Amino acid sequence: MSTEQIAACLKKGRGRPKQFDRDSALDKALEMFWRHGYEATSMSDLVEATGAKAPTLYAEFGNKEGLFRAAVERYVIKFAEKGKALLARPDCTVAEAVENFFRAAASMFTDKSLPSGCFIICTSAALSASSEEVAQMLKCRHHLQENTLRDFLQSRQALGELSADAPVAALAKYLAGTLQGMSVQARDGATQADLDLIVSTLMAVWPHLVNLSAERLQPLPVAVAEEA
Amino acid sequence: MSTEQIAACLKKGRGRPKQFDRDSALDKALEMFWRHGYEATSMSDLVEATGAKAPTLYAEFGNKEGLFRAAVERYVIKFAEKGKALLARPDCTVAEAVENFFRAAASMFTDKSLPSGCFIICTSAALSASSEEVAQMLKCRHHLQENTLRDFLQSRQALGELSADAPVAALAKYLAGTLQGMSVQARDGATQADLDLIVSTLMAVWPHLVNLSAERLQPLPVAVAEEA
Repeated sequence: MSTEQIAACLKKGRGRPKQFDRDSALDKALEMFWRHGYEATSMSDLVEATGAKAPTLYAEFGNKEGLFRAAVERYVIKFAEKGKALLARPDCTVAEAVENFFRAAASMFTDKSLPSGCFIICTSAALSASSEEVAQMLKCRHHLQENTLRDFLQSRQALGELSADAPVAALAKYLAGTLQGMSVQARDGATQADLDLIVSTLMAVWPHLVNLSAERLQPLPVAVAEEA
Repeated sequence: MSTEQIAACLKKGRGRPKQFDRDSALDKALEMFWRHGYEATSMSDLVEATGAKAPTLYAEFGNKEGLFRAAVERYVIKFAEKGKALLARPDCTVAEAVENFFRAAASMFTDKSLPSGCFIICTSAALSASSEEVAQMLKCRHHLQENTLRDFLQSRQALGELSADAPVAALAKYLAGTLQGMSVQARDGATQADLDLIVSTLMAVWPHLVNLSAERLQPLPVAVAEEA
């Protein structure tokens, strides 16, 4: 066993102080970041919110960015995975699965016990140009939502539940945009009923959306707009 | 003439230093706020960006909040009014006007010479809970977009260009959500072509959207989602 391996074992064995509850601290850090954004939240805010000692937070997460990354993972596990599970239900039609996904988002984005909107969308929008690395990570997460929707549509297309020429990539982008709009409106004070109205509108045109073909969605000439 | 009136005249007559170009300073302040958000932008950042002296900025705008409010007004005049003008063109059908409005937004949100996305949507999302007053002002502005779209649809409905039972309030909310989603995606690195794909998808289902009736959009039971 090398010196490095021994050091690693010792470090592992030493463990963290028993009184530190990592998940509970992460939940509180997540809420701070969600409510105030990455940059407006300081390490001392996080120390206060989590009730942990500063050295404990540094030992566990390295720095504010490390704590933020862990909070993002916590959010994904606690909330984003739920949406994915709703899409994965094989007993639902495509339309039912999409509706369940969006109704759950409408409910979660306006849940009074949580900050409004989607954590990833809110925090990403709040990042200034100076937090390039964190912005990059959030961009990937963001695309994860669109990718989750595209993967779902593709899997149902493979099963023959959507026509072979349904424009699944464009639909996923459109659905992700609707989800982001709902998050912005929730942050702006929209109620669950407001968001449910958007979902109802979406679902009312859903049969037409899935019947679009990729050709139909070629960008149109923008001549009229440019004339103005 | 009272002492107060004389003082007011003298103050007015004195004017501001000739070298201070209010609009140009506002344009630079607007870009700072747009790129970095309200809270992450300090008065010293604004002094540097505008090239004005700090006392000049304080005399002209009072404080950071005053400068921000003036920057919001500047944005509305420079950009938001353009969208309103596209909707107001009487030579366009409802669908053409909506498409012009959204294509112009896709173009502006991804204009390389400006920060990405809509200034109002980006800045509003970036506000922490501590800037309550500014948040309140932005909320009103935000609703202005939805209200602009609703006023447009209502005016065309009054002309008989939309059926009398078309759910204009719901449509305005849905369109505002789409616009907000486009702004979030632009901020996330979407290209004009990406946003144009969303606009094409929207326009492809537009004939079905305007044919919805208010009754059809009553919230559906969410039983399936809750079971999950």
